[in-house]
Amino acid sequence: MKYYTQFENKSLADQLIQKALEYKSNPFMDKTLGAGKRIGLIFLNPSLRTRVSTQIAASNLGMEAIVLNMDKEGWALEMEDGAIMNQGKVEHIRDAAGVLGSYFDVLALRAFPSLTNKSEDSEDFILNQFIKHSGLPVISLESAIRHPLQSLADMITIDEHKNKERPKVVLTWAPHIKAIPHAVANSFAEWSIGCGHDVTITHPEGYELDERFTHGATIEHNQDKALADADFVYVKNWSAFNEYGKILCTDESWMLSEQKLSKAPNAQVMHCLPVRRNVELSDEILDGSRSLVQHQAQNRIYAAQAALSNILK
Amino acid sequence: MKYYTQFENKSLADQLIQKALEYKSNPFMDKTLGAGKRIGLIFLNPSLRTRVSTQIAASNLGMEAIVLNMDKEGWALEMEDGAIMNQGKVEHIRDAAGVLGSYFDVLALRAFPSLTNKSEDSEDFILNQFIKHSGLPVISLESAIRHPLQSLADMITIDEHKNKERPKVVLTWAPHIKAIPHAVANSFAEWSIGCGHDVTITHPEGYELDERFTHGATIEHNQDKALADADFVYVKNWSAFNEYGKILCTDESWMLSEQKLSKAPNAQVMHCLPVRRNVELSDEILDGSRSLVQHQAQNRIYAAQAALSNILK
Amino acid sequence: MKYYTQFENKSLADQLIQKALEYKSNPFMDKTLGAGKRIGLIFLNPSLRTRVSTQIAASNLGMEAIVLNMDKEGWALEMEDGAIMNQGKVEHIRDAAGVLGSYFDVLALRAFPSLTNKSEDSEDFILNQFIKHSGLPVISLESAIRHPLQSLADMITIDEHKNKERPKVVLTWAPHIKAIPHAVANSFAEWSIGCGHDVTITHPEGYELDERFTHGATIEHNQDKALADADFVYVKNWSAFNEYGKILCTDESWMLSEQKLSKAPNAQVMHCLPVRRNVELSDEILDGSRSLVQHQAQNRIYAAQAALSNILK
Repeated sequence: MKYYTQFENKSLADQLIQKALEYKSNPFMDKTLGAGKRIGLIFLNPSLRTRVSTQIAASNLGMEAIVLNMDKEGWALEMEDGAIMNQGKVEHIRDAAGVLGSYFDVLALRAFPSLTNKSEDSEDFILNQFIKHSGLPVISLESAIRHPLQSLADMITIDEHKNKERPKVVLTWAPHIKAIPHAVANSFAEWSIGCGHDVTITHPEGYELDERFTHGATIEHNQDKALADADFVYVKNWSAFNEYGKILCTDESWMLSEQKLSKAPNAQVMHCLPVRRNVELSDEILDGSRSLVQHQAQNRIYAAQAALSNILK
Repeated sequence: MKYYTQFENKSLADQLIQKALEYKSNPFMDKTLGAGKRIGLIFLNPSLRTRVSTQIAASNLGMEAIVLNMDKEGWALEMEDGAIMNQGKVEHIRDAAGVLGSYFDVLALRAFPSLTNKSEDSEDFILNQFIKHSGLPVISLESAIRHPLQSLADMITIDEHKNKERPKVVLTWAPHIKAIPHAVANSFAEWSIGCGHDVTITHPEGYELDERFTHGATIEHNQDKALADADFVYVKNWSAFNEYGKILCTDESWMLSEQKLSKAPNAQVMHCLPVRRNVELSDEILDGSRSLVQHQAQNRIYAAQAALSNILK
Repeated sequence: MKYYTQFENKSLADQLIQKALEYKSNPFMDKTLGAGKRIGLIFLNPSLRTRVSTQIAASNLGMEAIVLNMDKEGWALEMEDGAIMNQGKVEHIRDAAGVLGSYFDVLALRAFPSLTNKSEDSEDFILNQFIKHSGLPVISLESAIRHPLQSLADMITIDEHKNKERPKVVLTWAPHIKAIPHAVANSFAEWSIGCGHDVTITHPEGYELDERFTHGATIEHNQDKALADADFVYVKNWSAFNEYGKILCTDESWMLSEQKLSKAPNAQVMHCLPVRRNVELSDEILDGSRSLVQHQAQNRIYAAQAALSNILK
């Protein structure tokens, strides 16, 4: 595996989940696998959980991680080929990625979408420019359209907590105060469908996700109906995809609460964090026994460790 | 010891001072004590000296330190239980502390006071929320009301430089251009009284510290009188506690100078740094032989190492 | 060697180039040389390439590197002796450098020029204050007037790619949209003249560099004439030195392009990066076979490693 940027196939996903669970019970079992190697963690957007969990994953494999916060360290990158660079952008991604390619053995990149340029975002323009010009194995730390380390952690968490072979997994839209990217929702759909779960997606009309990611899921606009008999409920806001980047609905009744789960007594609740309490999800759920959010967060370490070890091998 | 947040008792303080001095002469004597363990250094406010000295202390013990500058990395934390998070705060401390609790073995936190909410600051609200929700051993890197690693470094420095069993230690208020927290002054009083030194505190009227910390000290508003025959003079600005967070006095004559020490020929002068030269303290003192400020700063490493090793054991 | 801040003599330069090439073929050959030692990388101005390459160099030598971004971590330093610090500056360089001197074994500093105070910049005031008050070996990560690690990397690159004993090396001014320091240009002139290359410098009138650095070079205002038969062309913008810090010329025809190199068929092109594409240099050159910019960037690691190992020994 050279690139860890998306769901590839069920067999690889199963293998990564298995490996992650082995690392969870024995984090240092491959503690010299990455000895003498370096990973550059490149952030074009802020991160705490992703940064720290990936640092820990690398360290568990004996690998040195060096963080570059390019958003904060004043190094605005020009992405367009042929640009005449007489404006605010300090360096072209061709040159920056080339240099990073000669400094590291593996690179990991976070690059959020613009939410204004739908076609560039949809083709994951920045991630692909970076891959093309660095020449190295690349791990996505969340791109414009996918967040594959989050989704692997989510699949590990479902695997640890499922009570039946093919659980009913519901991805439900939730209210938020800002326009949020689609990456977590897209990836969760892509991975949970790909892993063979029984997937329902529920959201207000107008919030349809890009069909590339939802093919194979049931789409149900009635949230109550969607939630009935759910085994896992994944709560997430996203902005509109068709009316790209827009906030179309602020209906607070979409917030997930205990009352909403009355017809899903066994439902366990998931969220990628950070979560807006009492906006997306109620305190009662987050602080109750249904919540898996802390398990998901912890599994980020082992998801990153499994992806990285697969690349190193 | 699970929490290092305040002065506990003289016996523990003596033990920590002793241990720190051992580390100072042999920094790597416990170089595998923290092997395979990680400390998260969480900064809600800026730091250089504290961050670097604690990183070095951890590294001397073979422990990995990972720094999170939450103030600068855009992760404003909601602290209030039950909040409806539809404003600027991105994540609740319950969730953030929970995640950090699953990523690290020990946490260290810097959280300054608001200087506007006296009751929350006085109960060290943020530090205690963090302790409650992380579930881990916690070291304070300066809280709203205490700075116990600074004070331990100060006690080590006094121990190294004292010429009598029970030195006269004077904490003197100094002018400053900003409203400064009480933490360093509170902790210095708490530790130097607790360690059995003969403590006098001098400040303009209105600058009384919280009595919890000064019980056992002589309070003397006449600075000249207070300084007479001092063995150690600790210079520090703080804002008013009763008229909470206010600047009541800008009297430049409170700046410590050589002339002020004419009746304290043996006085050695301390400050936690950073110091406003020629505002709090004159150049002549800082650059002369009375100054212990560089010793204090260096001892920060060994104070942190002693506190951390006590937690690890 | 205690200070690595400038070109010293050809013999030392040759020795450093040789050592760097050995590290390039065997990065871990001295992997325990820095064991138990620490380098503080102090940035008063932003950096990515310099920071990462120096971190990697230290790590290759088994040395721990700790980064302090003093520009971003809110610690504005007072530089003037005797200042009354009642303004925005938080700490005096005397105190800060003293503390850093007790925390580390080696220090490295980046301190750009003001471009407004010619005499302070010209005497490298900040770097020298820092050296004076830290008491430690110091490596310059670019000062007001020199960038010696960049120049060592450049000399290594010329050595690797030269086809004759004494190549013709041309330093050519290029357009830019901002007022840029002289450090890279000064140092490149100082090192390439000192290493014995046949050096020509070309720039519009008014852009004369400080003669301290250019003594021994041919100055030629006609760019076409200067470029004829060049073996290496180093492209760089700088602001005026005589009319200090001013932009006197924005003539786009000074941009280096293939057409300009028609009379220099064997010319290889260098730039320290980051480069403004199609402002300083055309895409066709940067993406073509003449470009050495990626080699220069990679050699930054081995230049830093050679300088650091020389200091450690």
